[in-house]
Amino acid sequence: MSSSGSLNPESDSFEGRPVFYIGQHDSTRTEALVDDQYTQVLNSGFRFVTAPITNQHFFNRVVDLHRAYLKEREQWTEQRGLTAAQPPNASLPGPVVPTLTDKDTELYPSNYIGSLAVYFSPWIDLCSSDPLISSISRQVLNLEAAYANFCGARTIVVPGPRNDDSSRGIAQYARAIREAMHVANRANIIIHMPMYREPGLDEKAETLSSIFNPGNGLKAKEKEIDLFSAWDSWNTIRSVCSYSMRLFVALRVPRRVPEKTLQERWFAEPLHYLTIGQDIFELNRAGHPSLSRNHQDLINRYMRLRSIPWLILCDVGPRPEELATRPDEMAAEFPSLAEASQALRESRRPHMPAMNAHVGYMRYLERQQPPFSAMETPALTSFQDWLQPPLQPLADNLESATYEVFEGDPVKYDRYETAITEAMVEWKELKKPTSTATPENPSNPELVVTVAGAGRGPLVTRALRAAESTGTPIQIWALEKNQDAYVYLLRKNKVEWGNKVTLVKTDMRGWEGPRLKGREDVIGKVDILVTELLGSFGDNELSPECLDGIQNHLARPHGMSIPHSYTAHLSPIATPRLFADISSRVVGDPNAFETPWVVRLFAIDYVAQKVPDHPRFQQAWEFAHPVEVARADDFAAEHGKAAKHVTGGVGSMAGASGTNEHNARHCHLTFVCPTRGVIHGLSGFFESVLYASQTGAGKEPVEISILPDQIDRKSKDMVSWFPIFFPLKKPLYFPQDTELEVSMWRQTDDTRVWYEWLVEVYAWVGPDTRIKVGTSDLHSSRKVACLM
Amino acid sequence: MSSSGSLNPESDSFEGRPVFYIGQHDSTRTEALVDDQYTQVLNSGFRFVTAPITNQHFFNRVVDLHRAYLKEREQWTEQRGLTAAQPPNASLPGPVVPTLTDKDTELYPSNYIGSLAVYFSPWIDLCSSDPLISSISRQVLNLEAAYANFCGARTIVVPGPRNDDSSRGIAQYARAIREAMHVANRANIIIHMPMYREPGLDEKAETLSSIFNPGNGLKAKEKEIDLFSAWDSWNTIRSVCSYSMRLFVALRVPRRVPEKTLQERWFAEPLHYLTIGQDIFELNRAGHPSLSRNHQDLINRYMRLRSIPWLILCDVGPRPEELATRPDEMAAEFPSLAEASQALRESRRPHMPAMNAHVGYMRYLERQQPPFSAMETPALTSFQDWLQPPLQPLADNLESATYEVFEGDPVKYDRYETAITEAMVEWKELKKPTSTATPENPSNPELVVTVAGAGRGPLVTRALRAAESTGTPIQIWALEKNQDAYVYLLRKNKVEWGNKVTLVKTDMRGWEGPRLKGREDVIGKVDILVTELLGSFGDNELSPECLDGIQNHLARPHGMSIPHSYTAHLSPIATPRLFADISSRVVGDPNAFETPWVVRLFAIDYVAQKVPDHPRFQQAWEFAHPVEVARADDFAAEHGKAAKHVTGGVGSMAGASGTNEHNARHCHLTFVCPTRGVIHGLSGFFESVLYASQTGAGKEPVEISILPDQIDRKSKDMVSWFPIFFPLKKPLYFPQDTELEVSMWRQTDDTRVWYEWLVEVYAWVGPDTRIKVGTSDLHSSRKVACLM
Repeated sequence: MSSSGSLNPESDSFEGRPVFYIGQHDSTRTEALVDDQYTQVLNSGFRFVTAPITNQHFFNRVVDLHRAYLKEREQWTEQRGLTAAQPPNASLPGPVVPTLTDKDTELYPSNYIGSLAVYFSPWIDLCSSDPLISSISRQVLNLEAAYANFCGARTIVVPGPRNDDSSRGIAQYARAIREAMHVANRANIIIHMPMYREPGLDEKAETLSSIFNPGNGLKAKEKEIDLFSAWDSWNTIRSVCSYSMRLFVALRVPRRVPEKTLQERWFAEPLHYLTIGQDIFELNRAGHPSLSRNHQDLINRYMRLRSIPWLILCDVGPRPEELATRPDEMAAEFPSLAEASQALRESRRPHMPAMNAHVGYMRYLERQQPPFSAMETPALTSFQDWLQPPLQPLADNLESATYEVFEGDPVKYDRYETAITEAMVEWKELKKPTSTATPENPSNPELVVTVAGAGRGPLVTRALRAAESTGTPIQIWALEKNQDAYVYLLRKNKVEWGNKVTLVKTDMRGWEGPRLKGREDVIGKVDILVTELLGSFGDNELSPECLDGIQNHLARPHGMSIPHSYTAHLSPIATPRLFADISSRVVGDPNAFETPWVVRLFAIDYVAQKVPDHPRFQQAWEFAHPVEVARADDFAAEHGKAAKHVTGGVGSMAGASGTNEHNARHCHLTFVCPTRGVIHGLSGFFESVLYASQTGAGKEPVEISILPDQIDRKSKDMVSWFPIFFPLKKPLYFPQDTELEVSMWRQTDDTRVWYEWLVEVYAWVGPDTRIKVGTSDLHSSRKVACLM
Repeated sequence: MSSSGSLNPESDSFEGRPVFYIGQHDSTRTEALVDDQYTQVLNSGFRFVTAPITNQHFFNRVVDLHRAYLKEREQWTEQRGLTAAQPPNASLPGPVVPTLTDKDTELYPSNYIGSLAVYFSPWIDLCSSDPLISSISRQVLNLEAAYANFCGARTIVVPGPRNDDSSRGIAQYARAIREAMHVANRANIIIHMPMYREPGLDEKAETLSSIFNPGNGLKAKEKEIDLFSAWDSWNTIRSVCSYSMRLFVALRVPRRVPEKTLQERWFAEPLHYLTIGQDIFELNRAGHPSLSRNHQDLINRYMRLRSIPWLILCDVGPRPEELATRPDEMAAEFPSLAEASQALRESRRPHMPAMNAHVGYMRYLERQQPPFSAMETPALTSFQDWLQPPLQPLADNLESATYEVFEGDPVKYDRYETAITEAMVEWKELKKPTSTATPENPSNPELVVTVAGAGRGPLVTRALRAAESTGTPIQIWALEKNQDAYVYLLRKNKVEWGNKVTLVKTDMRGWEGPRLKGREDVIGKVDILVTELLGSFGDNELSPECLDGIQNHLARPHGMSIPHSYTAHLSPIATPRLFADISSRVVGDPNAFETPWVVRLFAIDYVAQKVPDHPRFQQAWEFAHPVEVARADDFAAEHGKAAKHVTGGVGSMAGASGTNEHNARHCHLTFVCPTRGVIHGLSGFFESVLYASQTGAGKEPVEISILPDQIDRKSKDMVSWFPIFFPLKKPLYFPQDTELEVSMWRQTDDTRVWYEWLVEVYAWVGPDTRIKVGTSDLHSSRKVACLM
């Protein structure tokens, strides 16, 4: 089961799978390990250990302080003839925990302290409703945070809130953590949370509360299991800590693995550690420790995160009695960093003890993980949850390398080729007239194909290939506004395309139309117009506006646009990481929260569930081409005519003439969330019908899609587009049985296009009663609008 | 009932009461009045009139446009063999409303347009679920907004949302208003809202919806009356419009005056107009129009606002047929401003028609209002809802004029004098020893009184007076750190106090103590220590810390501090005005939302209701003096001793030695809100027991209070303190049956004191089920902390 190779996670055998980084925690340990002991644990297969900040001596001292104070207060109350039931008098100060001494801790600065997971005292109770206990707990927290920070600890683990049945407790706890982060101003603070509160979960160890308020906390155990209450507590804590980038979760793997919804909820959170208790392991037939299939799946899933969580195995040995004895007396002074370093080197003599059986099993699991897929190459995973600013597609000229990246997606161009092929076949089957037909030669068979926005020509190549494979005679135009790409196209036409292509350097919206071959005095029409102007949200790179500007050259009624139509889709998501990231940008970029970001969404939670009539992903709107008027400029006039006595239209915005009003859109969608949660914004996707039969004669449309539940069916492994993300300025919390109502607008003033979005929260609180519980701001990307 | 004097609201007879500014609206008017008509209306007693932006011609044109479009779409659908039930095809553009022509409006730029209340077309329906109607409505709104803005209109009234049973409608409506505010970039936009949606409220006039979707809207009328739904709609609208300072309410007075809770809710909103329909008036026995007592009270209440709302009487005449006929033909061109001005002057010839009976009645009501009280002087009302930055009481020296303002409050000093008097009486009755007592002369009767922070000496004067009235021999010290006030005190001692006072220029925390008269080598103790260090929230100007610094000079156990104790109190409030004000400051002052502001709260709504165990105002915490240790510096040592082997304390904050830890406080309060609403922050108040008998022997304590429900009983007309306001960064919405859980902390790091606050929202959704629906940020005034 264990092999010597498994000790080295950097070895070749691990290539192509996530690496396990395994640490050891002993809940009975009350003192930091000394060097020899540390080495011993490392040698048994662990990569790091945990260390308590303070020891039993300190615990006893705090308990004594508390006892002495209670006695003093009692005397004081008696002296004044007051009863114990009366509230403590405001003039009697509470206890102050004295500073640490060298007797209170075995932790000291060393050159490996940065690799220790340092543990706060588990006996404090920050949530206590007893003001003395919560005050002492807070003082202990700050003392320990300050000292650990001084020693150079970089990772400090705090026991999570003890109970969640009082909101009072959580607010108090959260504020104390925020203060501790202020005190330990360089360390990461890790909150140790259960995945959910399993019955009997609380540790049996002695705490301030169990000593001074025995009997409290029993109530919570009797209650029904609330799967999301632990997550809810965590959400409050990190909200109060303003989504600090230094705040993480150590997630305790539960004995019973819960439903997927909860697993996915935690998947989106900043998991620093997964902690696995001794009681999670089963013994297999050979008597070796092992984990259930559900536990394995859970771990495998979390190991797919971009920042792979580290594993902490709890109480799986080496047990304290197996470790070397401590030196009789601690050194009178701290060792210097140099001395400590020397001691460590010496202690690393190559004596290899037996590997810990639990570590061995985890190494085995490590090797059993499914290997990385084609979508998990380092190049692609590096894009996970990485915000890309939106393009200004009409204003910016792309570089050759960018085109090359786009062209590197065979799936997309294969779909385009299929679409063009189907269009040509249909043309022939139905014997549609072509644009080159004339009264003299009504059956002129040459199709006019135009690739508008040709870039470096991949669609031209595909169109030529389709014509060849279908035996369709074509005249082909390629338009490109980027003068540098134009040079590339000219060369390609000579070298690859045999000069079959007519190249025009122009913005497609300013093109005069095709001068037909052999009849150059005639401006003809286009039969098949091919473009690749789609963005992550379909229309967000102004495909509708660009196509409006060229569609007057399309033959009517039979000219086809490829793509034929496209739809935008939305789903609300929780993504704490992106929220924190955008928050950190606001100083330099005041519009960061009103910018639609392109991002490969990964560590996110789709909070909406699929229910009848309310899918998880919902269509916002659709665009179809060509639009049913000859020229965009005529829209207003067309409809002005209906009112008989007017010549110009006006549209929705002051000063605009309404020519782009028909490209405005609006949607109102309702998403259903059975469990409580929080959202940080809306994920956006698109689908496109590249080709659909004009007759609808039984032909399958040719589609592409980046919708998570459709991409594998319609365009598997297509990587050209990442989703889009519309953030919310403030996380929006919602209770269980909620409907999220999303309103979104595509707005235009004839010179720019932007989006506006708003989310409202309604909760069902009875069979017929729905109450509003919150609303987001109205967000608008107007200030970072796409220029037409 | 009417008198010529009443025509002039500036006349003397109106002094001391709010002034009514009365306008006229005619719902049947479809064209702006011409000059002569305008004059005629003014002459009948009104001060302004309303004017529609567009006319019947425009309405007809829009209806025709819509009809023509529907026909066109039908043909288009038929041609393609589609059914009408299918959604409109994305390639068919919607209608575009053409620009206005001179036939569409009678409004034009004039020199009195700024005084018109300009009305949007009442027939639009921005909320419509029919996308065509909502789109056309939005286009009409923007057309009219742009044109009215061009003409110079400064006040544009928009009909409120037509129905509220669809959240979709409100979001759509609100976004359209935001767009219109962008288009009309200088005008104020006034949303015409009913106070609540009374059955049968909707106007009977023709609208786009009633023409094209008859039958819609009936459902809403059948439903139970939801008192807060209109307010809720308004709240959504102004939230989407980011609490713009240009957005106001025209509040329609209902036929039936609703409960106080709702009246107060609207009291806090930016009321620009109160509109009163003809049907609100009753006829009295003489056949004259009059209003019910409830209506009168409602109006009187709103007239107390600092920005007094204007009144618009609707459809009370002069009726259209009573007005001069319009000129047969409008001038071919707009009159120039000069011409218009000339026309207006000419039309103002002094022919006095009869005053409108309704105006006459309103003038009568105006005179019947209760006169301004002592608390409503212009000096005091000017402070209403005016944010004052917090003091740095220990760092700043006050000017003489500021002291003079403080001294101008007789109530406060009378209470202090009573407290000192009672203390002296008790001293004599109980034959307590005095500080000047010595073993040789144990009954030395001279009390040592010290006024610490004497300022210009008002409390010294009161102490001397109390000693005289009770015949108490005293030695009196006055301490003052402000060197300039010290000069004033020296002079006062000579001129007024007969050199009876020992003056010391010192910070009270550095005072050596009283050198007793006749025994100057002895540092004695103080019997009665008098201070006035209280802030609006009690402890917010560091009274606890200052008294800690001097209490070692107080005789034990019998020395008394006046004040004896004080408590801080909180209540959550809605205050849209302050929220908007603070929002506007954030650019220059990034801490504006984390600053406790001193403000005379006025146009606010206390959202919490008093229920058993949960009063509207709740105590946060208490301070009592002297504290039960000799010196603040000893606190840590005192308790350190309990743990036996430690000398220094540490307190809660890194680097602090915990000397001020005992002045930290924390509270968790639950407020009950039966109706839905929104809060913008917490109002804070204090109460103080200046003197309480040490024996508790049946004596009433001497108290002061600024709590709204206590001030009249404990210290009526005391004006020295305004409340404090702890803002929230984002308005916090809550549904009905909510509990607001307020957590607040008084924090200290031994050099500074600040507050932290957090509000959580829980809603009861069943007899045993309470769900969390939202949380505020944790706010902290650490960055604007009070320096010790």
